[in-house]
Amino acid sequence: MMVNKLKYIVVLLMVFEVAAFCQNYTQYVNPFIGTTNFGTTNPGAIVPQAMVSVVPFNVTGSDLNKWDKDARWWSTPYSWDNQFLTGFSHVNLSGVGCPDLGVIMVMPTTGTVDANLKHYGSIMSGQRAEPGYYTCKLEKYNVKAEVTSTKRTGLSKFTFPKGESNIIIDLGNSLTNESGAYVKVVSDREVEGWRMTGNFCYHGNSERPVYFVARFNKPATSFGAFKKMPAMMGAEKDWSASSGKFKYYTQFLHPLAGDSIGAYFSFDTDAGESVMVQVGISYVSIANARQNLEYESNGFSFEKTRNEAREEWNNVLSKVRVEGGTEDQKTVFYTALYHMNIHPNIINDVNGQYPMMESYGIGEVKDRDRYTVFSLWDTYRNFHPLMSLLYPEKQLDMVRSMVDMYKEGGWLPKWELNSKETYTMNGDPSFPVITDTYLRGLTDFDVQTAYEAMLKSATTPQKDNKIRTNNDFYLQKGYVPFTEDYDNSVSIALELYLADWNLGVLANKLGYRKEGKRFISQSKGYKNYFDKKTFKMLRPKKADGTFIADFDPLQGQNFEPVHGFHEGTAWQYTFGVPHDINGLIKLNGGGKQFAKKLQDIFDHQLFDMANEPDMHYPFLFNYVKGQEWRAQKEVQRLLDTYFKNEPGGIPGNDDCGTMSAWVAYSMMGFYPVCPGDMNYTITKPVFDKVTIELDARFYADSTFQIIKHSGADKEYIKSIRWNGQAVKSFFIHHDRVVNGGKLEIHMGEKE
Amino acid sequence: MMVNKLKYIVVLLMVFEVAAFCQNYTQYVNPFIGTTNFGTTNPGAIVPQAMVSVVPFNVTGSDLNKWDKDARWWSTPYSWDNQFLTGFSHVNLSGVGCPDLGVIMVMPTTGTVDANLKHYGSIMSGQRAEPGYYTCKLEKYNVKAEVTSTKRTGLSKFTFPKGESNIIIDLGNSLTNESGAYVKVVSDREVEGWRMTGNFCYHGNSERPVYFVARFNKPATSFGAFKKMPAMMGAEKDWSASSGKFKYYTQFLHPLAGDSIGAYFSFDTDAGESVMVQVGISYVSIANARQNLEYESNGFSFEKTRNEAREEWNNVLSKVRVEGGTEDQKTVFYTALYHMNIHPNIINDVNGQYPMMESYGIGEVKDRDRYTVFSLWDTYRNFHPLMSLLYPEKQLDMVRSMVDMYKEGGWLPKWELNSKETYTMNGDPSFPVITDTYLRGLTDFDVQTAYEAMLKSATTPQKDNKIRTNNDFYLQKGYVPFTEDYDNSVSIALELYLADWNLGVLANKLGYRKEGKRFISQSKGYKNYFDKKTFKMLRPKKADGTFIADFDPLQGQNFEPVHGFHEGTAWQYTFGVPHDINGLIKLNGGGKQFAKKLQDIFDHQLFDMANEPDMHYPFLFNYVKGQEWRAQKEVQRLLDTYFKNEPGGIPGNDDCGTMSAWVAYSMMGFYPVCPGDMNYTITKPVFDKVTIELDARFYADSTFQIIKHSGADKEYIKSIRWNGQAVKSFFIHHDRVVNGGKLEIHMGEKE
Repeated sequence: MMVNKLKYIVVLLMVFEVAAFCQNYTQYVNPFIGTTNFGTTNPGAIVPQAMVSVVPFNVTGSDLNKWDKDARWWSTPYSWDNQFLTGFSHVNLSGVGCPDLGVIMVMPTTGTVDANLKHYGSIMSGQRAEPGYYTCKLEKYNVKAEVTSTKRTGLSKFTFPKGESNIIIDLGNSLTNESGAYVKVVSDREVEGWRMTGNFCYHGNSERPVYFVARFNKPATSFGAFKKMPAMMGAEKDWSASSGKFKYYTQFLHPLAGDSIGAYFSFDTDAGESVMVQVGISYVSIANARQNLEYESNGFSFEKTRNEAREEWNNVLSKVRVEGGTEDQKTVFYTALYHMNIHPNIINDVNGQYPMMESYGIGEVKDRDRYTVFSLWDTYRNFHPLMSLLYPEKQLDMVRSMVDMYKEGGWLPKWELNSKETYTMNGDPSFPVITDTYLRGLTDFDVQTAYEAMLKSATTPQKDNKIRTNNDFYLQKGYVPFTEDYDNSVSIALELYLADWNLGVLANKLGYRKEGKRFISQSKGYKNYFDKKTFKMLRPKKADGTFIADFDPLQGQNFEPVHGFHEGTAWQYTFGVPHDINGLIKLNGGGKQFAKKLQDIFDHQLFDMANEPDMHYPFLFNYVKGQEWRAQKEVQRLLDTYFKNEPGGIPGNDDCGTMSAWVAYSMMGFYPVCPGDMNYTITKPVFDKVTIELDARFYADSTFQIIKHSGADKEYIKSIRWNGQAVKSFFIHHDRVVNGGKLEIHMGEKE
Repeated sequence: MMVNKLKYIVVLLMVFEVAAFCQNYTQYVNPFIGTTNFGTTNPGAIVPQAMVSVVPFNVTGSDLNKWDKDARWWSTPYSWDNQFLTGFSHVNLSGVGCPDLGVIMVMPTTGTVDANLKHYGSIMSGQRAEPGYYTCKLEKYNVKAEVTSTKRTGLSKFTFPKGESNIIIDLGNSLTNESGAYVKVVSDREVEGWRMTGNFCYHGNSERPVYFVARFNKPATSFGAFKKMPAMMGAEKDWSASSGKFKYYTQFLHPLAGDSIGAYFSFDTDAGESVMVQVGISYVSIANARQNLEYESNGFSFEKTRNEAREEWNNVLSKVRVEGGTEDQKTVFYTALYHMNIHPNIINDVNGQYPMMESYGIGEVKDRDRYTVFSLWDTYRNFHPLMSLLYPEKQLDMVRSMVDMYKEGGWLPKWELNSKETYTMNGDPSFPVITDTYLRGLTDFDVQTAYEAMLKSATTPQKDNKIRTNNDFYLQKGYVPFTEDYDNSVSIALELYLADWNLGVLANKLGYRKEGKRFISQSKGYKNYFDKKTFKMLRPKKADGTFIADFDPLQGQNFEPVHGFHEGTAWQYTFGVPHDINGLIKLNGGGKQFAKKLQDIFDHQLFDMANEPDMHYPFLFNYVKGQEWRAQKEVQRLLDTYFKNEPGGIPGNDDCGTMSAWVAYSMMGFYPVCPGDMNYTITKPVFDKVTIELDARFYADSTFQIIKHSGADKEYIKSIRWNGQAVKSFFIHHDRVVNGGKLEIHMGEKE
């Protein structure tokens, strides 16, 4: 009996594997989406949550490029609008608004080695990208470049013409505005070193070396290191051949260090001969980078690595199977899932080691991953709830990582980058992530410590508080006072209210009733800002309790400075209380007034799809009986207008998958308006059928399906059924979803 | 009996030690001699043949300085003429004409840390120096700086006022024109790293990192690293606080690398509180630098280290005891011995490891030292013969090092710097050193391999010959032809003749008669250049056998370009055949003509005391019977004119002790005109009595004494006696000298 059963399981697994293989969801990923229009994604080769991506770097060195990384605020190693390539960078951020990383650059050239990127850069053509693979042609050299990757290594294959062919590793060229590197050629086929990164958002605190070992698939005929030499003066300049120029250190095996250095490996190639280089990365040490390289190497089998990358992606993408919709819509959807699986990314080496938070110690994880790149002000809103639903194991590891950061550094993360707190954006955005995850049933993390960490952040006076630097007045009076022109007082306070509400919810859940009451009460402080008399909006308030005089709700459009708000207008924050929409409705004079004001925002172009504070607005219509059709209409309009299968198909920074999570939810037809609130609100799905494969280790061994029954001109939801039973509300609880079942949505005319 | 004898020896040793201690020869060393007038020595703290010296670095950063290292060709970290100090460098060259090293800079400051040397530099005052110790006051900070050293470490003691006091380790500031460094703060009292050196003579091939570990005698209250950030452009510059400025990385324990970086340690000091830092150096690794530091540390006992340094010097200086002469003359003499014991210096770590020649391998010596810094074109002339006489063990280790360099790198050294061949100057200058050392009785080295190496260099065709790049025509026709304006053809050939003569002498000594004959015959090729018809001088000759037309014997004064000669005029080379002075006399028409021409050179200021090629000229009068008084007169005049107890007291580069060896010999009253020729020629001693302690392990257990019997106006040698017996000749053989005895010189009137 036993044997037979096992056999049966094996057969089933095989069937499943075949099915998964046959259904190739990676065909619906267009890695070029978001690569212009400030989406700041890139088409580089990457596997899910990888430490390494191999990204064509084309934002420097030539007027042929539309955008130059040094000519303006610039945060991505790649732009669709550019065409001058200066290599492939191995450590990159995707979809963020601040520059960092973009280092360990590999560039193929031919002829005499020239380390000046303005000289060695090339026009690129014939770009193609798919999950885990990117290729282009370098016109200057007639070289075909192909790159693929593993979690901790990048593998590049360069097909050269006949002659002298080179691979340059340029540690000067970078996206980060930090500089300084170390390089040591180890042999004729290996080089090691590190490159400093940091200066995130041009303001620092993320400084850290990234270690690498690069190995070639064949020995070089010659090799060396290079360094840009400082310019000398007068007569001295005349004696020194290399003053202000690159100096080449041929067959040099000593270490080299400097601001602009690198190494080169040259090969005598036949026509069409390929040379490969695999680069292992570590944030801990060169030794770990070498171990990562060796562990994740396929012995320079490029196709095997590429196929494995594709399969990894297909596994991730196939957790949601959509039917119906156009090819473009499927592509927008699966590309959103793709972008959601880039950050946070692992930072632990294959041996489990990682750099500890705000420390110089080395931590070690076992049987799980340590995550980094937490853009929490963005991602708490929708990204983590969707990770919890689709990839609960990853989400759990992310929360475990956050709690470990507190244990190591004393504070929960805010905008964590490579185990450093960058103090970017505001509020206390780890709270909603922790509470939301716990409430979704993912409880297998040290919640008591998490709660202790939240309490500490919420209650520590501001002079000792690394996260809440406005805590004293806030704790006393319940709001953050406007203290100087263009401060972010209201925005900060709104973040704190939501955080405190989540803290209260978690406290209640853990049985700490007193604290639960206190923080939920505290979360209502937003009412302090409501200007009942004049504007009927949230309005900056001074310490003396009076509103600021020169209030202009339109101030702040297009990133211009604004009193009291951060990256947006008062309009984009005035409904920024997702944890108390009903309170907000009451303040606004009831549902009708509320819905009218909301519609005005959309009608008068006061809504900003390109940033996070108002991204829940279209779903707020669902809180007013009879107005739900407006949500369906606006969501569809926003999807159609801003999210497209084209390079400009994300309206602003993807923000580590936050925009993508909005798209994915919206296209599936539901949305978690408030993290910590387990009710999803329902809107019209783009697809006829959506099947979410629930992870049986955490949820029911089942699927959650959304089925749209529709026809021509039937644009609005007429009725909703859950497992065959009619549902009155436009909300469905998470517990239902993860127990599996069918959500049937019947479309019809608007009444 | 046995016991009693032993007791007797112990008592004797104690007496000797007391005597040596009582007679403090270091009082006659003035480390400021040679620190201006291009002597290029420095007053830094150093022990004999040390890897490390701690040198006040005052050649950059301010217009207060007369000389700036970057404004002209400059080769010394210190100038007596300057007054703006920017730290103490730990690895330095002394008395050379090309810049390199001058790195690992330690500087005390007070107040807020500022890493810009133009800001942190200070006027220095109250300089005092003695062997192994240097002190000055930093006016800007009211800080007293004192430095001392061991073979492989420098120990600095800074006495601060009350307040915030800092010690900056600046790896940007340097004498070398190479750049790039790595630094890692290890703890609040230790920092490690390395600094690239090289670009010797502005032309490279000596690139090598110098590793260090610095340790403080107390923990810092704060510390960090810093880096000069590249200048950014436009708007980007506005966002970045550190664009084009120094960025400070506080309490930073990651490694940092770059062109201009360093570390700082800050202390809260009481008034008059001292902070000490000891810096260990290695050319192999940071680990070895740490081991050197630990092994040579006295637990921050500054006085103990200083006393040990003084005693080491006294041991070295007391090998020659002079009586009579003025205090200034004694000072000039002992300072010359002091300068002779700086280079060549050891490069092996305490564990015996050293970087192998022209290789990336690590060698290891046991029970002996590995030497580096071989300025052989200079030092073969007189420095090594005097080392053989006074310090035979060191000289043997130097020759052993040279032979090992051949074994490691395939060629004997020419101008070797830190195990790299810099290819500076010309000829084959290791030959005379090897032959001379062997003939002086120091035979305990691998002479067969040395001979093999010499044969290889002498006979390998030029395309495969790293040292003799003019070998083909030379081997065929016996001279180096003039091929282009301002070539060094005659100078090169003269070096080769002397080298080949030495090879011939060694071959004969080893029993290789055929080769002996061949190379001694080859050494006579200088006659090719003798222009019998017109100038009666050595004159550049073309490949077709004709002399060059536009020959001007005065061309080349003051380093102006000259046809056929290197760093000098034809006059300064025309007697450049020390191995065949009799042949030269014959060519010149006999002794009378020869002496007249020689006298003309001195009378018409054609002689150059500041460079090596003609430094044997004054002694050549001794080769003409009856003209010896001219040698005595000219040597005395040169000593009196050019060598003084003052900063300008060396007429040009000391050239790693070559000028100093000339002074020491001349003042003692004898000189080795030709290396490889064991006859010293005799001239008038400056002192009444000179006693050379012979090293009983190599020579007689005895002394060699020179006693001058003189009185008022008795300026010329009247007669000479050796061990009481009258000597007719003005020459004395080395074998006599090292067997011990008395050379009595009776002075009188000129006849």
